[in-house]
Amino acid sequence: MTKKMSFENHIMKQFDEELEEIRTQLMEMGGKVEQQVQNAVRAIVEADSKLAEEVILEEKQVDSMEVDIDEACILIIARRQPAASDLRLVMMVTKAVNDLERIGDEAKKIANHAVLLASQSGATEGYTEVRHLGKSVCSMLSNALDAFARFDVDAAMNTLEEDNQIDLDYKTALRSLVTYMMEDPRSISRIINIIWVIRSLERIGDHAKNLCEQIVFVVKGKDIRHQK
Amino acid sequence: MTKKMSFENHIMKQFDEELEEIRTQLMEMGGKVEQQVQNAVRAIVEADSKLAEEVILEEKQVDSMEVDIDEACILIIARRQPAASDLRLVMMVTKAVNDLERIGDEAKKIANHAVLLASQSGATEGYTEVRHLGKSVCSMLSNALDAFARFDVDAAMNTLEEDNQIDLDYKTALRSLVTYMMEDPRSISRIINIIWVIRSLERIGDHAKNLCEQIVFVVKGKDIRHQK
Repeated sequence: MTKKMSFENHIMKQFDEELEEIRTQLMEMGGKVEQQVQNAVRAIVEADSKLAEEVILEEKQVDSMEVDIDEACILIIARRQPAASDLRLVMMVTKAVNDLERIGDEAKKIANHAVLLASQSGATEGYTEVRHLGKSVCSMLSNALDAFARFDVDAAMNTLEEDNQIDLDYKTALRSLVTYMMEDPRSISRIINIIWVIRSLERIGDHAKNLCEQIVFVVKGKDIRHQK
Repeated sequence: MTKKMSFENHIMKQFDEELEEIRTQLMEMGGKVEQQVQNAVRAIVEADSKLAEEVILEEKQVDSMEVDIDEACILIIARRQPAASDLRLVMMVTKAVNDLERIGDEAKKIANHAVLLASQSGATEGYTEVRHLGKSVCSMLSNALDAFARFDVDAAMNTLEEDNQIDLDYKTALRSLVTYMMEDPRSISRIINIIWVIRSLERIGDHAKNLCEQIVFVVKGKDIRHQK
């Protein structure tokens, strides 16, 4: 082996390690926001404002994870000048990190509503809807992150499909909530809070869908966004 | 001038032209979504479902603009291996394009509600709120795009501030809408549609804010996201 080749191998190895490091950071961030969503939903249905406060405080951590990973991506491009699939991977990470941050943001919004709701009357209309939709969304997010960890295109494509069911469940929940408001106009302010919660859950489903599309993009090199 | 230097100059000139081309495409996309938002708001307050349908149809154009610009960014990184501020610029474009696409998406949602509202009764509660908030949001978006076109950090910082007023106006509008619902529970379904519209407008303000933060990032090299 010539000295030059050995040097190049060394560079490649460093590059692989840096890529792996970014992926690990991304998965950590994914695990973090997944837990935030689970806790935010639990905080609503168990009227646990302490747990909600924790979710709200954790948002700062998620935000700085986003900035750190983004910075690492720019550095890796500048230093390693990756091409083809490596470049696609790094570009995908900068998109994924943005979706994860927005999921954390929605979890924080849910937690804010949990604090409000816990401080109000003991009424529980709408909680069944939140629990039900929350369960589907958490499961979809978890599947999306698993597919991400394994770069599994088939799993990503299957998980994508889950978003359709979530959209249907969201619409059904919304109709029930509007009916509660009509039956008891005094509950309007309270139910509006629940409506924001289910809207946030629906948005989290959309972001999980984006993650799946990014996996397909990085593995297949095919942009499947905006295809119905 | 040596032959090599002249060759390098040539490469640099091509790179500048490619960068300029991407910027032009981005500004075109910005102009497009700005008009979409304006038309969507007009479609609501003038109950113009034909205009709303146009906005809905135009979303496909915006989507393919996003995919094209993203692809151009990846190509420019792969071929030109830009460093420092050039790389930051390209990375920023891929983020900005995502915000613009989401603005187009919100405009489409508003247009969908416009079609629904136009087909219902002639009630107009909430239209004043939509018109008022729509005006502020369109103005902020327009300022953000102007700052973008000129890479004007001061203008970007000033525009950032507008989002606070929009958030306040949004909250005021929301309170009025909840009051309308309480006063006339038969209006609940209709008002819920208006609530989605003002929520979309508020989100567009957030995306305009992201654009401003990206300008600061690319010019100053400083990530000001998540700073209060």
